[in-house]
Amino acid sequence: MSKETQLEKLKLSIPRGFRDFMPADAMIRQEILNIIKSVFEMYGFLPLQTPALEMGEILSAKGAGGPEILKEAYIFEDKALRKVGLRYDLTVPFARVIAMNPNISLPFKRYQIGRVWRYGDISKSRFREFWQADIDTAGSESMAADAEILACAILALTHLGFKDFVVRINNRKILTALAKHAGIEEEKIPDAFRAIDKLDKIGLNGVKEELQNREISEDGTRRIIEFLEIKGEPSVVLKKAGEFIGEILEGKEGLDELKQIVFNLSNMGIKSGFVVDISLARGFDYYTGPIFEVSFPEMKESIAGGGRYDDMIGLFLGKKVEATGISLGVERIIDVMKNRGMIKPLKTNVKVFVANVNEKVKNESIKITQMLRENQIPTDFDLRDRSLRTQLEHANSLEIPYVIIVGPEEIQRKSVKLRDMKIRTEREIKINELVETLSSAN
Amino acid sequence: MSKETQLEKLKLSIPRGFRDFMPADAMIRQEILNIIKSVFEMYGFLPLQTPALEMGEILSAKGAGGPEILKEAYIFEDKALRKVGLRYDLTVPFARVIAMNPNISLPFKRYQIGRVWRYGDISKSRFREFWQADIDTAGSESMAADAEILACAILALTHLGFKDFVVRINNRKILTALAKHAGIEEEKIPDAFRAIDKLDKIGLNGVKEELQNREISEDGTRRIIEFLEIKGEPSVVLKKAGEFIGEILEGKEGLDELKQIVFNLSNMGIKSGFVVDISLARGFDYYTGPIFEVSFPEMKESIAGGGRYDDMIGLFLGKKVEATGISLGVERIIDVMKNRGMIKPLKTNVKVFVANVNEKVKNESIKITQMLRENQIPTDFDLRDRSLRTQLEHANSLEIPYVIIVGPEEIQRKSVKLRDMKIRTEREIKINELVETLSSAN
Repeated sequence: MSKETQLEKLKLSIPRGFRDFMPADAMIRQEILNIIKSVFEMYGFLPLQTPALEMGEILSAKGAGGPEILKEAYIFEDKALRKVGLRYDLTVPFARVIAMNPNISLPFKRYQIGRVWRYGDISKSRFREFWQADIDTAGSESMAADAEILACAILALTHLGFKDFVVRINNRKILTALAKHAGIEEEKIPDAFRAIDKLDKIGLNGVKEELQNREISEDGTRRIIEFLEIKGEPSVVLKKAGEFIGEILEGKEGLDELKQIVFNLSNMGIKSGFVVDISLARGFDYYTGPIFEVSFPEMKESIAGGGRYDDMIGLFLGKKVEATGISLGVERIIDVMKNRGMIKPLKTNVKVFVANVNEKVKNESIKITQMLRENQIPTDFDLRDRSLRTQLEHANSLEIPYVIIVGPEEIQRKSVKLRDMKIRTEREIKINELVETLSSAN
Repeated sequence: MSKETQLEKLKLSIPRGFRDFMPADAMIRQEILNIIKSVFEMYGFLPLQTPALEMGEILSAKGAGGPEILKEAYIFEDKALRKVGLRYDLTVPFARVIAMNPNISLPFKRYQIGRVWRYGDISKSRFREFWQADIDTAGSESMAADAEILACAILALTHLGFKDFVVRINNRKILTALAKHAGIEEEKIPDAFRAIDKLDKIGLNGVKEELQNREISEDGTRRIIEFLEIKGEPSVVLKKAGEFIGEILEGKEGLDELKQIVFNLSNMGIKSGFVVDISLARGFDYYTGPIFEVSFPEMKESIAGGGRYDDMIGLFLGKKVEATGISLGVERIIDVMKNRGMIKPLKTNVKVFVANVNEKVKNESIKITQMLRENQIPTDFDLRDRSLRTQLEHANSLEIPYVIIVGPEEIQRKSVKLRDMKIRTEREIKINELVETLSSAN
């Protein structure tokens, strides 16, 4: 291999919107994902793994993510000139798996934690490669399934240490009824949903403008705005909304489903922390009933979102299989935890560094290192033939809590020095006492 | 959303060489990766995560994977018409990270467990998306680093339950010396390595033919073949090889490095289970010194491989940073474990299914379910409004070990029935005794 450097010509970079996670961050992410995973498993969701690449025709299928998300999909031709693409969510692959396994035992409850890719705008909290943690249930039309999804997501956030998140619940059927109530033609309904979905960002006047831009009548716009102003306790909102749209079939169904979710949540011990928000619309086309969103007071973007999509699997399979689920946005959750100081980053999880005074006791250091490792104590030793001082500086800079100093005199006595790096004390200790002492040390 | 099915036109498939892992397999994979991960951490390797996509110019840089692997790389243009590609290994991204973080504290020891993608031929144990579990150390020229990598990989395999794997060790410098000894011109050396690398598959005569096809002289071919016939204990092999190439600088260095690895392994408690195999060549161009391969008796392909690549980071960074590492092939390890019956697949990790006798006690079932979940017992309940019999069949088919049957009479007595599905016994139990009983049950 030629030793010539290519520094001049090679630009060291990664694609924009992509990130490396150095050990401190990677350790935090592992810890957080483990907490989420254990709650998912407690709720009976089982792991499923799907490929990074899906066939282009699945990603762009009718009933999948829809045109908005498809614009951001990484789709390309493989060497056999077949269109393939990086998955943009975990929901479409889940629906595809159910459709490809028509004899699967239902309900099928799965979780999947993994990367998804979207070529979208980049910001402080928007990336092109990001992690989602999803739970979904296929094969249950019961609102208990939706309530269970919400209860599980709420418990995961609670286990991460959050108390002040808000869960907003709505139902697409209510919005459809509202659109009918406002006299909006069928084909303009998704447009109206997208306008309503922006309420948080652009306010009531903004939505008004958007609706008018989309050629929705003044009367229709007025009715929508009036409706969106309904606020209050779940029972109050449901009652008031009923006065508007209770007579319309979809409205009645939607309100009824919402009531059942609220009732089931209460049976699951969840009586507060959520609101019925009839302005919630969600961006995806595929939702058919309940929709959910979770947010923090300090953040405009939601940190979790989902809902029921009873038609997607049917469009793939040709046979109806109901489904509902939620997706937690891992990056935003970690962002909030960092900003709030809920996470104490660690530089390493190595507990002991075995330093050697000189080359002569290097082999003894290695033997002690191995003994500790075999006893489940994460341990490191010097790989750079450094002076004792440099070894200690290295251990210190990584904040390794304990250092063992192996010296020729102590070795004669079958001992070493054990230094506690936090409280800066040092004592001689027999080698055969090391495992017990260090196992119980913090 | 239209309900029309697209079954006629939509082909349900995933790209060839890609796989879904259904829960039973996904659970096994998680368990195996957790064992590997915990050994890596015990050895002081820290997690690093890099993106799925790398810039095309990194993947194809001089000193990276080389032309053979580049043929199999998924490289495409993103929407900004920049060449990007799915990573084909975890080594090149590691080298890129070190080069992009020139002030990182050395030695930097990291592990990464993740997917890589190669558009190659597909077979029973060859996929286009597969997992690697890598450990690498940057910034140590000591052979103790290479020995540590090997010791760690050996312990990981041992912890998985393997006893009969063979670790083969060689050194690229020995092969270079051999090539010189055989009078092969500099530019034909990599070609000769590739011929030698096939020894296992094509035998000595095959290698002979390959060498002659590559226009290597008859005398040169004879010398190589003679050398490749050296077999035996590490000390014997090292001595005999020394007689051939001990006078050539690279040969001397290579033999010396091998001896140091053997010595360090012995200090680490590893005195058997490895052989010095001077025919081992490894496919990648980037190796500069020690090379390793691990295999099982029943499998031609190796299950782990690696070595030292002291020049790769330097070619990226313009400043030499030594590196060595190994990559475990997760799929092949799992394959062997499955074939040997070392893995007992589970259909679920749900411990308890709470069945309800009728709709009236459904809410009680939900409350009991939640109580168990809050006490860390993975629990499920009926989401399909099924008859008791169908609920029991569902629990049975998933091999859930315990079923609670909630009935109106028992509820009056604050009790339920608890059925042990394995030994098929059933008894009445107070609801407030459930958590304790089930927590301690197997």
